[in-house]
Amino acid sequence: MTDGHTAEQSSGLRKGEIAVALPEKFDASLYFIGRIRTPWKRREECPKNPRETEAVCTIVLDPRWVEALQGLESVSHVVVLYWMDRARRDLVVQAPHHYSERRGTFALRSPVRPNPIAVSVARLLRIQGNELSVVGLDCLDGTPLLDLKPYFASTDAVPEASVGWHAATNR
Amino acid sequence: MTDGHTAEQSSGLRKGEIAVALPEKFDASLYFIGRIRTPWKRREECPKNPRETEAVCTIVLDPRWVEALQGLESVSHVVVLYWMDRARRDLVVQAPHHYSERRGTFALRSPVRPNPIAVSVARLLRIQGNELSVVGLDCLDGTPLLDLKPYFASTDAVPEASVGWHAATNR
Repeated sequence: MTDGHTAEQSSGLRKGEIAVALPEKFDASLYFIGRIRTPWKRREECPKNPRETEAVCTIVLDPRWVEALQGLESVSHVVVLYWMDRARRDLVVQAPHHYSERRGTFALRSPVRPNPIAVSVARLLRIQGNELSVVGLDCLDGTPLLDLKPYFASTDAVPEASVGWHAATNR
Repeated sequence: MTDGHTAEQSSGLRKGEIAVALPEKFDASLYFIGRIRTPWKRREECPKNPRETEAVCTIVLDPRWVEALQGLESVSHVVVLYWMDRARRDLVVQAPHHYSERRGTFALRSPVRPNPIAVSVARLLRIQGNELSVVGLDCLDGTPLLDLKPYFASTDAVPEASVGWHAATNR
């Protein structure tokens, strides 16, 4: 299986970016369990991060999994995992256009990474059948859904956490 | 490709649990990018959640990806994505033994889910070469690593979030 971006993998690098050879084979596989409907059809239209928007997005779950929502209506926030299917996977050092310095892939939230899984925390408004209305996503319309989890403040919230390079950038 | 659990999929259900037929094919694939070394060799030994332990765990990254760590040393907390490779994937309703009620898979943090990807927030102690020392993981020794991300309090921390069913359970 390829990700459909083979032709791009040896080109399209910005200055200072570093690509590596991808492993020869995959180790595990995923099901797309639904799709995320958002107002954004092109990457340039997406908010820069999920707290920048109050737009209501709709998570449309494949009816196969609908019984798995039982109990989720009682949570205030949902951890949403989705697949950033348009991203190349071979960059280890990146130069995002909105930062002046290049950085390692694992120091960034860029969609470009070995496994392009995004993690977002969304506020749950309501669940109707197989559809969830949420606020706090910033992905493209039609993005494949991988998982939904209850957000537990006791283990997931670290208000005092810091990202040194980012704080320095924004001073 | 199968997940190796086919023989278990029609058995091993607790009372009230519901399994569904899995989709016929997968939609995307993952690379294991490293392994997580922890003190726990059997599931019964694992802490019930990541805040229960102060044990230092070691994330051993495949050397292929080591340049991608550049800049991560400046973060206090890392979002760690890993693959819970021993879990069945076909349950939509589960009866975890430590809760009295059954609930939907997406209302639980159980490893049993269509895509068994775990998300944990770990405190970063240090990075040496391709090894990260962290506190706050609760997985089995040898668990496959999928991704590392910087934890941004601005988008990832929601201290006021609530899980209604869980609060009711613990009253």
